[in-house]
Amino acid sequence: MSQHRYLLREDQIPTNWYNIAADLPVPMPPPLAPDGSPLQPEMMTPIFPMELIMQEVSQDRWISIPDPVREVYALWRPTPLHRAINFEKVLGTNCKIFYKYEGVSPAGSHKPNTSIPQAYYNAQAGVKRLATETGAGQWGSSLSLACQLFGLECKVYMVRVSYDAKPYRRVMIETWGSEVVASPSNDTNAGRTILAANPSSTGSLGIAISEAVEDAATREDTNYALGSVLNHVLLHQTVVGQEAVEQMKMAGASPDVVVGCVGGGSNFAGLAFPFLAEKFAGADIKVIAAEPASCPSLTQGVYGYDFGDTAGMTPLLPMHSLGHSFVPPSIHSGGLRYHGMAPLVSHLVHTGLVEARAYQQRECFAQAVAFGRAEGIIPAPEASHAIRAVVDEVERARQEGVSRNILFNLCGHGNFDMAAYASYLSGEMVDSAYSQDELDRATAELAGMPALPA
Amino acid sequence: MSQHRYLLREDQIPTNWYNIAADLPVPMPPPLAPDGSPLQPEMMTPIFPMELIMQEVSQDRWISIPDPVREVYALWRPTPLHRAINFEKVLGTNCKIFYKYEGVSPAGSHKPNTSIPQAYYNAQAGVKRLATETGAGQWGSSLSLACQLFGLECKVYMVRVSYDAKPYRRVMIETWGSEVVASPSNDTNAGRTILAANPSSTGSLGIAISEAVEDAATREDTNYALGSVLNHVLLHQTVVGQEAVEQMKMAGASPDVVVGCVGGGSNFAGLAFPFLAEKFAGADIKVIAAEPASCPSLTQGVYGYDFGDTAGMTPLLPMHSLGHSFVPPSIHSGGLRYHGMAPLVSHLVHTGLVEARAYQQRECFAQAVAFGRAEGIIPAPEASHAIRAVVDEVERARQEGVSRNILFNLCGHGNFDMAAYASYLSGEMVDSAYSQDELDRATAELAGMPALPA
Repeated sequence: MSQHRYLLREDQIPTNWYNIAADLPVPMPPPLAPDGSPLQPEMMTPIFPMELIMQEVSQDRWISIPDPVREVYALWRPTPLHRAINFEKVLGTNCKIFYKYEGVSPAGSHKPNTSIPQAYYNAQAGVKRLATETGAGQWGSSLSLACQLFGLECKVYMVRVSYDAKPYRRVMIETWGSEVVASPSNDTNAGRTILAANPSSTGSLGIAISEAVEDAATREDTNYALGSVLNHVLLHQTVVGQEAVEQMKMAGASPDVVVGCVGGGSNFAGLAFPFLAEKFAGADIKVIAAEPASCPSLTQGVYGYDFGDTAGMTPLLPMHSLGHSFVPPSIHSGGLRYHGMAPLVSHLVHTGLVEARAYQQRECFAQAVAFGRAEGIIPAPEASHAIRAVVDEVERARQEGVSRNILFNLCGHGNFDMAAYASYLSGEMVDSAYSQDELDRATAELAGMPALPA
Repeated sequence: MSQHRYLLREDQIPTNWYNIAADLPVPMPPPLAPDGSPLQPEMMTPIFPMELIMQEVSQDRWISIPDPVREVYALWRPTPLHRAINFEKVLGTNCKIFYKYEGVSPAGSHKPNTSIPQAYYNAQAGVKRLATETGAGQWGSSLSLACQLFGLECKVYMVRVSYDAKPYRRVMIETWGSEVVASPSNDTNAGRTILAANPSSTGSLGIAISEAVEDAATREDTNYALGSVLNHVLLHQTVVGQEAVEQMKMAGASPDVVVGCVGGGSNFAGLAFPFLAEKFAGADIKVIAAEPASCPSLTQGVYGYDFGDTAGMTPLLPMHSLGHSFVPPSIHSGGLRYHGMAPLVSHLVHTGLVEARAYQQRECFAQAVAFGRAEGIIPAPEASHAIRAVVDEVERARQEGVSRNILFNLCGHGNFDMAAYASYLSGEMVDSAYSQDELDRATAELAGMPALPA
C-alpha cells in the first residue's frame, strides 16, 4: 500500500517556537511609532501583554511553548502531512507533491496555532476580554474558541462582506461564545467615521483592525489580538513547519519547493520559516508565496513603512503595502484581502529569499476542485492559491525534465466556503481586478511615510 | 502533559471487516422478498453487485478489505480516539470519557467507510452509475466522493427538507461531481406518486430510497447504494470499532459503556460491534443506542417485518419500525429521520444485548454546545444524541458512586449544521413531537406483514 500520510506522536508536538529573526542573513528594519519615532516595547502595553511584546521583539532562536498551550494543541496537533498521490496522477507528473494539512484543527485552519497562545498569555496577565478583527472568519472563530478555553470574553469585528456572505462562520464564533459584529460598525469611532463617509462600505481587514485596536485601547479590561502580520503571530505558526520538517524526513524526501498562500503571511510563514532555516544553512530550497491578483501586496505593492490598519492607529510597519486605505475588490478568499504583508515575509521577499506570485481566483478554484476530487479534501479558497502555484511548479519541472519534491500548506478546508464553490461550478464566478486608480491613490499616500533605513 | 489523543499508524488500518452475524448468540430472522417468500441472493442482482450481496448474507467472521479500499481509507484513517478531558472537567465527573472521532473524513462523517467499498465493488463489477438517497447529506456527499475516486457517475435523491435547509451539503455533492435532486422528485414514478398526493411533501428517507431503488432497477447501467441499515453497510463500518479496541488498549482503559446515536444504525454498529464481540465473550460492557424522540423506532416502533422504503420496493426486513409510510417531523438531525432500524441493531435490542434511549433535540444541542466549547469540536446534530446519553451515564455513575470508562462515537462534525446551532443559540429551536395519530396509522399497516419466525 502506498504511504499517504505521515503522522507524528503527541509527544512530538514541538516544545519551542522557531524565531526566524535570530537567523536572518540581513536584519529587518524596526517598526516605528505612529509618529515615526522609534517604537518602544512599553508603547504596546495598552493592547498586548508583556509576554507577547517580548516575543515580538525577541532575537532568541527558540521560544519555549508553555505546557498549557501544548495541552490545547494536542486537541488536534500534530497535524498530518499527506502525499498527494491521487493529485499527482491527475496532473500526470513524476514530481512528488506533499501537503501539510492544517484543516484538522477545530476551526478548520491554522489559526488556532496562535489564538491559543495569545489567549493563554492574556489570561495569564489578568486580561478579561479580547477584541479582534476577522476577514473570512477563520481567525475570529479560532480566537473565540481560544477565549472560551481560557475563560476570556471576546468581541469580533467581522469584515462586512464576509459577515453577510459567511453567516455560518458567524454562528461558529457565537457557538464558541463570542460576540460578533459587522465592520465597519457603529461601536467605534473608526467604524462610525467610515460609515459616515460610505454607509454601504463592505469593509476591509484594515478597517476592522482599526475598530478592534480602538476597542482594546479604550477599555481597561480589554486587549487586542491579531491573527497574522506581526512577528509573534508568525512565530506561533512555526509549529507547522517544524512538524513538516520531521514528517518530510519520515517520507525520505527533502523539499525542493515550499509553497504557501499569503494574505497577512502567517500560514506561509508557519510552514516556510523552519525550511528557510535550512536554506540559510545552505539547502537548495525554492520558497514561494502565492497571493491573490486582486490584492497583490507583494507583487504590486510598495516596500516601505505603512500603517497596519486603515485609521492609522497601529505602529508603522516595514512591509509591502498597497496603501493602508486601499480597499480590495470582493473575492472569495476573504482571508487574503489585506492591504499589507507581514514585515518578516516582506523582508524575505525584498532580500530575494522568497519568490512571490499572484493568481486570479478562477484559476485557483479550478485547481481546488481538481484537488478536492482527487484527494477528497475541499480546500479553503485561500489555500487554492498555493495549489495553483504548485501546478505551476509541476509544469516547470515537466519543461525542465526533472522531478521535484514540492511541499505546500493546505492551511484550511472549504467547508464554510461552499457558496464560493457553487459560484465557481455554476460559471458565475468572475476574476475581480483591483482598480488601478484606487491603487495609485492609496500608494500615493505612502510617499509621506518615513524612509526605510539604508 | 495529559494524553488527549490515541493515534494508530497507517499500517494499523484494519485488514478485515468484522461480521457480527458469525457471533450472534441468537441467529437473526432472515429477510423476505417483497411478496413474503424467502429472499434469494440473486433477487438482489438488479441493484447490487454480487460481492456486496455475498457480504450481506455472509456468516464468515472476517471479510478481507481489498487493498484499493484500504488505500483510500488511508486518506483519513486510522481516525483518532480522544479522551474528553475538558468535557470531563465541565461535567465534574471522575468517569473517563473517550470518543472515537469520525469527523476527520473528507465528508466529515463515518459514511465514507462504506461509500468507498460500495463504489469499489460496483466499479469492479463494471457498473457505470450509482443511484442513492441522502437525508442530511452526509451519505450523499460521501458516495459522491467515492464515485469520483472510482470513476462512476452518481445521482443523489436528497430529502426535500434537507435539500432546502442544507444547500452547502448539496454544493459539496456537486463539487465532488454528482447530480443531486430534491426528493420527492419528478424523475421517478415513486416521486411523482407522492407529489401528486402531496405537492408540498418535505420528503423522507423512505421516499428517497424508493426513488433511488426505482432509478437503479429501471436502468441497465445503474446500481443502488444504501448508506445504512443493511448488513454489508454495518459490516464496512466496523473499521471504527476495531481501531477503537486497539486505541482503548493504548489508553489502558476497558470501556464499561459504549454509546452511539442511531438513525439507520451504521455509525453505532461500526463502533459497537467489535466491543459486542468482547461482550459475547464475557466482558461486562453496557451498549447504548441513542435515538431522537421524534423518530423513535427502537423505543416506540414495532419489531417485525417491514419494507425499508416507503413505496414497498425493497425486501421485507426484520426490524423495529414506525411503519414504512411514517413521516417523522422535521428535526435538525436529518440523518436520524428513518422509519426503521438496521435488522442487526434491532435484533440486538430485541435480544437485550443493546439498550435504546430516546432524547429530544434541545437537550441534545445543549450538550453539543457544552461539548464543543470544552473540546473544540462542534458535533453533528446526530452525534449530539450520543453525547446526551453519555451525560446520562455520567450522572448514573455519580449516583452510584462509581467511576466508569465511557466511550462514544463522535460520528461527524457540525460544520454544515450551523443553521441548527443558530436556531438553538437564539432560543428558536423547539422539540418537535411526532403525531400519535400518524404513528398509530403507520404502525397499523404493519399488522398485515408476515410474522417473525418463532
